[in-house]
Amino acid sequence: MELGIYSFADVQRDSNSGALGSTADAMRNLREAIALADAVGLDYFGVGEHHTYEMPASAGAVILASAASITKRIKLGSAVTVLSTDDPVRVYQQFATLDALSNGRAEITAGRGSSTESFPLFGYSLADYDELYAEKLDLLLKINESNPVTWHGRHRPPLDNAWVVPRPEQRHLPIWLGTGGNPHSSMRAGYLGLPISYGIIGGQTKRFAPLAELYRRAAREAGIPEANIKVSVASPGFIGDDAKARERSVVASLDRTDGEHWRDSWICAAQPSPVRSRCEPRWSAIRGRP
Amino acid sequence: MELGIYSFADVQRDSNSGALGSTADAMRNLREAIALADAVGLDYFGVGEHHTYEMPASAGAVILASAASITKRIKLGSAVTVLSTDDPVRVYQQFATLDALSNGRAEITAGRGSSTESFPLFGYSLADYDELYAEKLDLLLKINESNPVTWHGRHRPPLDNAWVVPRPEQRHLPIWLGTGGNPHSSMRAGYLGLPISYGIIGGQTKRFAPLAELYRRAAREAGIPEANIKVSVASPGFIGDDAKARERSVVASLDRTDGEHWRDSWICAAQPSPVRSRCEPRWSAIRGRP
Repeated sequence: MELGIYSFADVQRDSNSGALGSTADAMRNLREAIALADAVGLDYFGVGEHHTYEMPASAGAVILASAASITKRIKLGSAVTVLSTDDPVRVYQQFATLDALSNGRAEITAGRGSSTESFPLFGYSLADYDELYAEKLDLLLKINESNPVTWHGRHRPPLDNAWVVPRPEQRHLPIWLGTGGNPHSSMRAGYLGLPISYGIIGGQTKRFAPLAELYRRAAREAGIPEANIKVSVASPGFIGDDAKARERSVVASLDRTDGEHWRDSWICAAQPSPVRSRCEPRWSAIRGRP
Repeated sequence: MELGIYSFADVQRDSNSGALGSTADAMRNLREAIALADAVGLDYFGVGEHHTYEMPASAGAVILASAASITKRIKLGSAVTVLSTDDPVRVYQQFATLDALSNGRAEITAGRGSSTESFPLFGYSLADYDELYAEKLDLLLKINESNPVTWHGRHRPPLDNAWVVPRPEQRHLPIWLGTGGNPHSSMRAGYLGLPISYGIIGGQTKRFAPLAELYRRAAREAGIPEANIKVSVASPGFIGDDAKARERSVVASLDRTDGEHWRDSWICAAQPSPVRSRCEPRWSAIRGRP
């Protein structure tokens, strides 16, 4: 088992005034966090793509590359890359470059996008939500499999015997399928033989057990080798020596995020009551001592 | 005056077999070169976007970010970003992230593309060569000027009051216009008030003096402040203590590059004779002692 952390490069708030800090500080804080995670021996650090002032990690591979030069062992990944609204060629180029610069520590977790702010920003329609993802994942896997690449699709110009460079240090980049819990995504990861990463930002962890079972069954039916069938789970986490202080921090965190991304997220959208009462009981968070 | 170096992350050849090395090694060699340039006190390092196995620096901001963490003073730029075939939003996000991670040392040099391999790779037509560039440069400058951004154009989906994050550490990113010597580009940089960077990879340096004059005149006619009127020149360079060894290295370099990018470049295209004789007399290279 591997243990790691992911971050959306959250911009910090001043604890007195509540004012948001700078997005540039958030980039530097995140690099420092990755270096610390490496120093204390965690296995993995993931940076999640978002495009809001509060969560400005829009260029994850750039952040991870800055950390690559000052870390030794930790794996550096996206959590997630919103593949549906990006170009698989550019994504591959960036992560292959990261892989070279980290001596083979890069990973991609490719998601459809549970936040949808990147769709209008890059001119995509939510009507194509799944088709965009399926097609772009197909291209990303093809680039990873061999070069040069010939490929045709609806949502990206065709490639005709095109080299995509640089090539990664690892023979193939590890590519995970990231999902918020849609059953179809679990089946897709299974039959494609991809490791799966469940981003449990809403709902209890136990709700994901049948999905992981669905994933494993699909993979076995597709004849995928056992070694390639891998499951990752991620939840918000609160770590602290003092249990009471830790619980206060959980509550304060829910208060602070009210009005930002929790309010509009798909997790709570169907419930009209105030955020704490409507989300807290359904909210999965890892709590414990260091 | 500032002094710097640019690189296309050239993949090294084995001096005996002539075999090309790995693109991943080229990424790491380039980071080492940037760190050395910083250590010896150069002012600037530029990474040029290309998409060939021999020149695999396709994700410049990722390479530069890895160097940002191990350098102190050197400015880190693109030389050039092929803006015509990229998305100004993504380019800005990457370089603003780099700017944060380097504490304000990032620059963009935006070019139309003197090599054209990125046009088929990203599905653009050379028929739109100049219109693509004009439109995307307009958007890039608008993002740099203020946020949120509202923008409409032909070659990129519109933006409606969209934030582009993160914001750079510098109030505005320095954006240079990169050109191979087209008079119209010099005038464009002048009237837009952008600093200009001449990439002199073919032709003698003196041929560029009238272009710089054209640039300065256009800028003054547009009322651009003198402080913003800046000219950069870049040529291949050969530095060594021993003059004879240095000249041998110039000739060997021309031999080696025969069959790769020099052969097909626009500099020599009209001339049918073998590469050394057809290019050497017209070829500008900086030669000198360290």
